[in-house]
Amino acid sequence: MSQDKKKLDAITSMEEDFAQWYTDVVIKSDLIGYTSVKGCMAIKPSGYAIWELIQKQLDERFKKTGVENVYMPMFIPESLLEKEKEHVEGFAPEVAWVTHGGMSPLQERLCVRPTSETLFCDFYAKDIESYRDLPKVYNQWCSVVRWEKETRPFLRSREFLWQEGHTAHATAEEAEERTIQMLNVYSDFCEQVLAMPVIKGQKTEKEKFAGAVATYTIEALMHDGKALQSGTSHNFGDGFARAYDVQYTDKENKLQYVHQTSWGVTTRLIGAIIMVHGDDNGLRLPPLVAPTQVMIVPIQQKKDGVLEAADSLCERLSDVARVKVDKTDKSPGFKFAESEMRGIPVRIEIGPRDIQNGECVVVRRDTGSKETVKLDGIEEYIKALLVTIQKDMYEAAKAHRDLHTYEARNWDEFKDIIENRPGFIKAMWCGETECEEHIKEETGASTRCMPFEQESLSDVCVCCGKKAKKMVYFGRAY
Amino acid sequence: MSQDKKKLDAITSMEEDFAQWYTDVVIKSDLIGYTSVKGCMAIKPSGYAIWELIQKQLDERFKKTGVENVYMPMFIPESLLEKEKEHVEGFAPEVAWVTHGGMSPLQERLCVRPTSETLFCDFYAKDIESYRDLPKVYNQWCSVVRWEKETRPFLRSREFLWQEGHTAHATAEEAEERTIQMLNVYSDFCEQVLAMPVIKGQKTEKEKFAGAVATYTIEALMHDGKALQSGTSHNFGDGFARAYDVQYTDKENKLQYVHQTSWGVTTRLIGAIIMVHGDDNGLRLPPLVAPTQVMIVPIQQKKDGVLEAADSLCERLSDVARVKVDKTDKSPGFKFAESEMRGIPVRIEIGPRDIQNGECVVVRRDTGSKETVKLDGIEEYIKALLVTIQKDMYEAAKAHRDLHTYEARNWDEFKDIIENRPGFIKAMWCGETECEEHIKEETGASTRCMPFEQESLSDVCVCCGKKAKKMVYFGRAY
Repeated sequence: MSQDKKKLDAITSMEEDFAQWYTDVVIKSDLIGYTSVKGCMAIKPSGYAIWELIQKQLDERFKKTGVENVYMPMFIPESLLEKEKEHVEGFAPEVAWVTHGGMSPLQERLCVRPTSETLFCDFYAKDIESYRDLPKVYNQWCSVVRWEKETRPFLRSREFLWQEGHTAHATAEEAEERTIQMLNVYSDFCEQVLAMPVIKGQKTEKEKFAGAVATYTIEALMHDGKALQSGTSHNFGDGFARAYDVQYTDKENKLQYVHQTSWGVTTRLIGAIIMVHGDDNGLRLPPLVAPTQVMIVPIQQKKDGVLEAADSLCERLSDVARVKVDKTDKSPGFKFAESEMRGIPVRIEIGPRDIQNGECVVVRRDTGSKETVKLDGIEEYIKALLVTIQKDMYEAAKAHRDLHTYEARNWDEFKDIIENRPGFIKAMWCGETECEEHIKEETGASTRCMPFEQESLSDVCVCCGKKAKKMVYFGRAY
Repeated sequence: MSQDKKKLDAITSMEEDFAQWYTDVVIKSDLIGYTSVKGCMAIKPSGYAIWELIQKQLDERFKKTGVENVYMPMFIPESLLEKEKEHVEGFAPEVAWVTHGGMSPLQERLCVRPTSETLFCDFYAKDIESYRDLPKVYNQWCSVVRWEKETRPFLRSREFLWQEGHTAHATAEEAEERTIQMLNVYSDFCEQVLAMPVIKGQKTEKEKFAGAVATYTIEALMHDGKALQSGTSHNFGDGFARAYDVQYTDKENKLQYVHQTSWGVTTRLIGAIIMVHGDDNGLRLPPLVAPTQVMIVPIQQKKDGVLEAADSLCERLSDVARVKVDKTDKSPGFKFAESEMRGIPVRIEIGPRDIQNGECVVVRRDTGSKETVKLDGIEEYIKALLVTIQKDMYEAAKAHRDLHTYEARNWDEFKDIIENRPGFIKAMWCGETECEEHIKEETGASTRCMPFEQESLSDVCVCCGKKAKKMVYFGRAY
C-alpha cells in the first residue's frame, strides 16, 4: 500500500461495530490482501510471519511428544472419500471438485482435501502390518479447502492453512490418551504463547466431527463476547479403521483394527489473537508471536548521531528481541500510530536529548505506559519487559474472559444473559439434542463444550427442566 | 512397513538398472509411499525430514537477502490465467481444473496453481502504488500441481512441494540483479548444503520459461550421466506487468510498469541428492541434510551397561550432531545395513569390549572407512568428522561430474560421446533453434544451458558448421 494511501485514519471502534473493527484491523495492520479468487485471501508478510511463529513453536511442541511430519496428496478420489459414511456426509457438501486434468476429463473426479482422514487411512492400510509398526504419530502442515458461502479473513475462508495430525494406535486407551495429550498441547500453546485462556472440554454428539467417537475442543472468548472454537482433537475409535481396513497383527499373530485420532489448528488462531487482544488502536501481539517485538523510533532523526544511536541500540537489543529501527521519512507521530496498529509490543523512542542523558523512552503497546529507561542495562530491561508483557496480556485476557462468563440456573436467566451480557454461559443440560437445538433456535447460542472441569449449578436442565447430566458452556460463536 | 517384510534384500545395482535402483532406494530407505491418488506420492517422515532441512536452510538464506514469506490462494480463475498469452499456452495443457464447489457448478472454472505468477501479478497490481512500495521480494512455500502423464517419485509428480519467489522492481537492472542473486543463492546452497556441484547458466530461447525474457538455471549431473535441472530463476522484464497492469508512480509522479522475477526449487532436489550421492547400499546423505547424522548401534546390547553406555554417548553427542541410538531387537548386522540404506552419514558401534577400553568404532557412510576412536574427546571428533564428510562428498561428486564432462568439437565426436559416454557434453552452437531441435531428435540430448563461464572450443556450430555463438552444455536429462 502506498505511503499516500496509508493515512492511518482512525479505525472503526470496537464498541461501534466489532465486525467492521475486525476488518479494519486485518487490513490496516497489513495482515492480508483481498484477491480475485472469491473467498480466498492473500496472507501478506506481516500476517504470514505470525503464522511462521505459530508453526515453529507448535511444531517444536509436537515433536517433543514424538510427532513426525509427512506430506500426503492434496486430492482425494471420490471413491476413497465415500468409504466412511458419516464423514462423506459431513464434508461432501463443501468440497471443491477437480474434474479435468489438462485437456481431458478425469475418469474419476477428485476433491481437493477438506481434511485428510481418508488419505491417511488409505496410507496406513498399506503401511501398517504388525504391532511393531505402531503407533504412527504423523502430522502435516498444509492448506485445505472448504467451499464456504460466507467468508471472513482468517475466521472462515475457502482455503486456509492448518496442521492436521493423524495417528494410529494398537489400543483404544492409547488413542484416547493421545487425543487428550494433543488437546493439552493446544491449550498450553494458546495460554503460554498466544496469551489466550481456553476452556477445555468435549463436544456434544451434535457438534462432534463427522466420523468421530469423541471430539474435544478448546474454546476461547473473543472481545465481543462471542466464542471461537480454536482447536479440536478427535478420537475415532476403530470406525475409520473398519471402513478403510486398517489392520495390524498383534503379538499373538491375530488381526486387529487400529484405533485412530486426528487433531488440528488453523490460521483461525490469528483471528483469535486479533479478537482477544486487539483494541481501538489496532492489533496487540503477545511478544512470543510478534514478528517484530521492539520498534525503535528515532526522534529528530536528521540530527547528528540520532540514527547512529538508534542503530547501535538495535544492535545491542538484537540478542534479546526481534527488533527494528523505523528509518522512513514519516513523522514520529505517524510511526507511533503505525507501530501501534501493527501490534508491536514495545516502542522505543530515542532523540538528541535522550542520547545526551544516556536514556530512551520505552512504551508498552499493551498498557500504553511510558517510562524513561537508562541505556545502560537496557538489554536486561527489555528482555524482562517482554516476559512481563506476555504474562500481563494473558492475565488481562483471562480477567476479561472470567468477567464475561455467566451462570444461568433457569431459562429466564439464560435468555436475560444472552440478550444483555455477551459472553460464555455456564448452564446445566439434560444431554438431549432436542434441548440443544431448541436453545440454538431461540437464542443463537450453541453448546461450546462440556468442560472437563464440571460444576453442579443445579439438578435440572436449563431448557427442559428434566434431570441434568452435564454442565455445558454455551455461547454465540464464530 | 513391518519388520517381517523389511528383509533389506539387496537392492538392484546402479550398473544393472539405474531406474530400478532409484525406485528401490526411494522405497527401501522409506522416503515415500505410493498412494491411491494416481501420480501423487506420500512423503514419509524420513523423506519429509530432508525437505524440512532443505526448507530451513534455504529459507534462512532467502531472508538474509530480504525475502519475505507470504501465502497466495491455490486457485487461479481461468480468466486470470489467460492474461499472459505465452504463459497460459505453456501451462494450460497440464493443469487440473476445479469445476464444482460443493453441489454446484462454478460460474468460472479455477485451475489448481501450476505456478503463481498470475496470482502475484494480480496481487501486486492492487498492492503497489508508488516507488516507495518497491521492491517487493516475496516468496511462498507450497505445493503445485501439473498433470504429468508419466511420473517418478520426487523427479516428476502431479503434485509437488516447492518454493516460488516472485519479485517486483522499479527498474530492469534491479530485476536482472535479483534474478542472478537468487540463482547464486541456489548454487551456493546446492554446493554447500547438498554437496552437489552445479553448472550455472542461461537457458536457450527454446528452453526458457513460458513468459520469461530470460531463464537462468543450475544443472547438476546425476550418477548415471543424465542431467537434472535443479533450480531456475526467471527475469520477466515488464511483460507480465503489462499483461496484468502492475504499475507504480515514480519520483516524477509518472506511471511506470514494474519489472518482475520469479525463482523456484522443488522436492526434486531430494531426487538429486539420491542420484548424485547414492550407491549400491542405498542412500548417502550429506550431513547438513541428514535428519539423523549419527546412528549409535549397541553391540551385545543385552549385556550389562551397554545400553547405558550407548545412551550416555548419545547424550554427549547431542550438542554436536543429530544423533540416535538403535535399540530395536534387530541384529547388529541388520542395523548396519539399515543405517546404510537410510544414508546416515556416521555409524558408531559400541559394545562391552569398547566400553572397557574407553573406545567406540566409527564408520563413515560415504567412504565405508572404519576407525576406533577414544570416547574421551569424541564430541570434537564427530563434529569435525561431519564437516569432513560434507566436504568430501562435495569433492567426490565434483570429481565424478568433471570426469563425465566431455567436449565435442564436431558432430562425429558428439554422437560418439552421447552413445558411449553418458555425461555433460560441452559444444559450440550457432544459436539457432533448428540445430537445437535437430540435436535433440538425433541424440536425445537437449541444451542444458549456456554457462556463464564460456569457453571457445571451436569457431563453428557442432551441428551445422556455421559460425558458433555460444558454448552450450548438452545432455540427456530427467
